[in-house]
Amino acid sequence: MMEILAVNSGSSSFKFKLFEMPAENVIASGQIERIGLPGSIITVKHHAGEKFHHKENIKNHREAVQVLMDLLLELHIIKDYSEIEGVGHRVVAGGEYFDHSVIVDDKVIDQIRSISDLAPLHNPANLVGIEAFRKILPAATSVVVFDTAFHQTIPEENFIYSVPYEWYEKYGVRRYGAHGTSHRYVAGEAAKMLKRPLKELKLVSCHIGAGASICAIKNGESFDTSMGFTPLTGVSMATRSGDVDVSLVSYVMEKMGIDSISEMIYLLNKNSGLLGVSGISPDSRDVLQVAHTNHRAQLSLDIMVKDIVKYIGQYAFEMGGLDGIIFTAGVGENSDEIRAAVMERLAFLGITIDQEENLKRGVQDIVSGPDSKVTVMRIPTDEEVMIARDVLALNEVPQATNF
Amino acid sequence: MMEILAVNSGSSSFKFKLFEMPAENVIASGQIERIGLPGSIITVKHHAGEKFHHKENIKNHREAVQVLMDLLLELHIIKDYSEIEGVGHRVVAGGEYFDHSVIVDDKVIDQIRSISDLAPLHNPANLVGIEAFRKILPAATSVVVFDTAFHQTIPEENFIYSVPYEWYEKYGVRRYGAHGTSHRYVAGEAAKMLKRPLKELKLVSCHIGAGASICAIKNGESFDTSMGFTPLTGVSMATRSGDVDVSLVSYVMEKMGIDSISEMIYLLNKNSGLLGVSGISPDSRDVLQVAHTNHRAQLSLDIMVKDIVKYIGQYAFEMGGLDGIIFTAGVGENSDEIRAAVMERLAFLGITIDQEENLKRGVQDIVSGPDSKVTVMRIPTDEEVMIARDVLALNEVPQATNF
Repeated sequence: MMEILAVNSGSSSFKFKLFEMPAENVIASGQIERIGLPGSIITVKHHAGEKFHHKENIKNHREAVQVLMDLLLELHIIKDYSEIEGVGHRVVAGGEYFDHSVIVDDKVIDQIRSISDLAPLHNPANLVGIEAFRKILPAATSVVVFDTAFHQTIPEENFIYSVPYEWYEKYGVRRYGAHGTSHRYVAGEAAKMLKRPLKELKLVSCHIGAGASICAIKNGESFDTSMGFTPLTGVSMATRSGDVDVSLVSYVMEKMGIDSISEMIYLLNKNSGLLGVSGISPDSRDVLQVAHTNHRAQLSLDIMVKDIVKYIGQYAFEMGGLDGIIFTAGVGENSDEIRAAVMERLAFLGITIDQEENLKRGVQDIVSGPDSKVTVMRIPTDEEVMIARDVLALNEVPQATNF
Repeated sequence: MMEILAVNSGSSSFKFKLFEMPAENVIASGQIERIGLPGSIITVKHHAGEKFHHKENIKNHREAVQVLMDLLLELHIIKDYSEIEGVGHRVVAGGEYFDHSVIVDDKVIDQIRSISDLAPLHNPANLVGIEAFRKILPAATSVVVFDTAFHQTIPEENFIYSVPYEWYEKYGVRRYGAHGTSHRYVAGEAAKMLKRPLKELKLVSCHIGAGASICAIKNGESFDTSMGFTPLTGVSMATRSGDVDVSLVSYVMEKMGIDSISEMIYLLNKNSGLLGVSGISPDSRDVLQVAHTNHRAQLSLDIMVKDIVKYIGQYAFEMGGLDGIIFTAGVGENSDEIRAAVMERLAFLGITIDQEENLKRGVQDIVSGPDSKVTVMRIPTDEEVMIARDVLALNEVPQATNF
């Protein structure tokens, strides 16, 4: 038995989940927000639902980790720091260095830092969290789990853009994708539900949250994914545009008198998607509520549904078949309307809907009918348990340096 | 019987084809190049292959039309100007004004001029040609045929980008598509070959030339197309990138110290595609020749083939079915290798190849096997005959203003 912390660090916060492994029991979870700002907020859920909520001023990530550890002791969640034998960190960009999770050492830290350009808001923040935990828990196995690693199996013709090849060689411009840990988790669950080996399956995973990405998973490996060099592309999202014509960017810049491409990238990331088209909200629930009387609201949803259908079709054809479709993440797990709308457009494939089952939210189950030609699944994602599993696996494998 | 000229004007040239309608016989064809430059070149093919080639200095388009008409008399192709009763002009951008071809009047001219922003290199040049022919042949019915008109049937969720809706309302930012006249022509031919009414078919037309676009044609109407606001997007082309992540544009600008987005748009239009990835040539024949020993050459073709496969899949799913696939334009009509590579990737659909038939170039025929579940056709495109047909049809219909 081993206690493992899964950590997701931001620049002024981190979230955590403490697992008892390999049982995968969640012992505690929570977050510390406003680190380095006045009135930092600490929240810990533990012992079957008890919630601890507290405010104090925390200077930096190292102090935050210290506060958290002392609190875990105080709340009798752990008896000693040494109980936590592993810490796994989510890292957004792994570039081409990392095609799987690895144990942290100085070289790994340097590599993550060297590709910060690929995720300027995220990688440096992730590193601050990693360093803080290493200082406070020096004996624990420290592991990094990359959002991009799962997609490193994508074949070249799917990850190279049709632009000057030097941009790849010199600047690393290629498709990296995102949500890899989520796609990897739900693919494993889907294979269990289909009672078939993952290695034999052609799946399309639809991770639809505020950010959304579709992934073609062939024989257990990522084969293509809709997010590209950055998370801007692919399907229409809460506030992101997904795929657009680059030429419209320069056209709009001229029309609106915008000089800076960064400002356009900002508008495409923050003012587009459901929010941009509907003019109402980035939240699909708000938009759904008014869609029957508001044309732009309905249109924004129609575009999102069409985009999901289009990527499922694209990936079915790229893989040469389709054994299952997965819906996961906020919208994918909870919106029966979006799932139903996608499945209705796929009726031509012989996909049917289990209407009653589809109405449920956040429960892992098959939502297509028993006669459906392709099985459609609703699978709540769990990136934290994947992180804990990776820590456990790496902790058990003797490291090369030990020989 | 009526003689109709189909004209495609550029800024310093025009191409023409003279038809005897409704028989659709080509009486003569040719072009005048370097108009307004020293040493303008006149080429006319007539009387079953005779070729007239001549150089002289031509000041402007009006003079060029005069020179052409006099030459047609001199070569005994026509006996009198008045024989030519109709002139049809290709116009690149019709915006949202035009969903079909129309007879030219002053209002039409103004509308074409008002949307020149959408095709700054093409629409003004097209207008110069239109005006020149109207002056020299004032009695002929003058018709404009738009590249974009066929795509005006695309439903809203397929033409609205998921960006701030005001960009559509204020600046006309939407999917317009291109190659509409070509897609419309080959769809009609495909219906004849399939011996089924066009109104009942779901077709994907692959117009693959130096520029390339894929079109979903449902019930005889364009339902979606891969070129977008401009011809930059969609599949990888000779020198154009097709779809890319907008964020890579700003990233590369920073890395390369490029200040202007126009310069990036130029690189995506001129230095990308087959040329950019292979580093060898924009011509698929050159690239094919070295692909077996050159990795980047093979990769550039693999990307193009994957892109075609991906759009066929996307459109089959969007339309909810697929009755036929069409290959047309330079590469589509002539490259058995590209056609075969696409069909091989579609074997999972039950598509088979008629190997012998597929080897032929530029001949209208079915290239899939007799047992193929989806029929694949090679159809040489003919935009000029479509222009002549539209002129004929509009000439025969009494105009509203005549009542």
